[in-house]
Amino acid sequence: MALALEDRLAITELVSLHGHLVDDGSLGRLAEVFTSDVVYDLTDFGQEPLNGLLAVREAAWALGAANPVAHHVTNVVVTASPDGLVRVRSKGLGIRADGTCGSVSYEDTVVRTAEGWRISHRKVSVRRAPLGGMTRSD
Amino acid sequence: MALALEDRLAITELVSLHGHLVDDGSLGRLAEVFTSDVVYDLTDFGQEPLNGLLAVREAAWALGAANPVAHHVTNVVVTASPDGLVRVRSKGLGIRADGTCGSVSYEDTVVRTAEGWRISHRKVSVRRAPLGGMTRSD
Amino acid sequence: MALALEDRLAITELVSLHGHLVDDGSLGRLAEVFTSDVVYDLTDFGQEPLNGLLAVREAAWALGAANPVAHHVTNVVVTASPDGLVRVRSKGLGIRADGTCGSVSYEDTVVRTAEGWRISHRKVSVRRAPLGGMTRSD
Repeated sequence: MALALEDRLAITELVSLHGHLVDDGSLGRLAEVFTSDVVYDLTDFGQEPLNGLLAVREAAWALGAANPVAHHVTNVVVTASPDGLVRVRSKGLGIRADGTCGSVSYEDTVVRTAEGWRISHRKVSVRRAPLGGMTRSD
Repeated sequence: MALALEDRLAITELVSLHGHLVDDGSLGRLAEVFTSDVVYDLTDFGQEPLNGLLAVREAAWALGAANPVAHHVTNVVVTASPDGLVRVRSKGLGIRADGTCGSVSYEDTVVRTAEGWRISHRKVSVRRAPLGGMTRSD
Repeated sequence: MALALEDRLAITELVSLHGHLVDDGSLGRLAEVFTSDVVYDLTDFGQEPLNGLLAVREAAWALGAANPVAHHVTNVVVTASPDGLVRVRSKGLGIRADGTCGSVSYEDTVVRTAEGWRISHRKVSVRRAPLGGMTRSD
């Protein structure tokens, strides 16, 4: 099922809004981005997944000054799967106070709610090696 | 009032175009981005606001080699306010010649002109502290 | 000729997809982004242009660990030219393993194929100097 253009734009703005809210410290507004039962998969960091919006918010407060000063989101690609789920890939760039950067990939599942599109599942993967660590012979 | 999709896309391209023009040194074309009477609010830098397109252009020339080598714009969120104004939030990433980055937030008001959408007011805020300097107890 | 909104969005996702495929090492899927006879202009790096998809893929494998760990694409501006060609400007941000960044500009020509939009020509220019090296007197 093709996704209407207004939905594609709304979903792109949804993942963009996340960076504004976090960088403003407006964590009380994260319900505008995530479902209340969101699963936030951090296994690539060697952590357990965060279950629910409150856990996501607490984790951000707990990280405190170790959070990046800015979260830039790029390369948003929205795909409506044959199974009816809408998946979104994007790339997150975290800017540290010393001016260096770290890059992650986001793989999101988004759902339509009465209040609009929300992220119900997010998997975060750190970019550690060029070409995903692959070589010609892989 | 909902904004047509073509307007949302045009506004997103408008804030994107700014980076290309500045990084090319095509400051003579900034009228494609700003109104002639644009207010460019730099109070977060401890500076007076720049009044008018000519002042914006002169400030960029005056900054010269201290400008970033590249201006990347991300996280564009367009909102049509009930008061009829169209506001745009975005995040700017400035890349310095040494490969380090600085991040700002842009809060723009855009207006429809005979030549297309233009930015009539821009407020630039530097991202200095994670979570906007907020803590759980705020 | 105006370009339909769905084409504009598809082209924006096309240049975004490139970053995901390269950073995953999914170079076997680059045919989803480039035409088989793509010309990849690297003259700004002092190199000969790469001719064809296979040459682009081989160059990426050959660069190996010297590739950035992440390719972020921003500032996408799509323009349908009077000559019928569709041109796309964007800005690429390469994140190195040490957290520093490099910035390039992409000037693409995209064409509609039976499988969707593809990049048939890409010129890459490195951002080396603020304001493109221009000064007020230029």
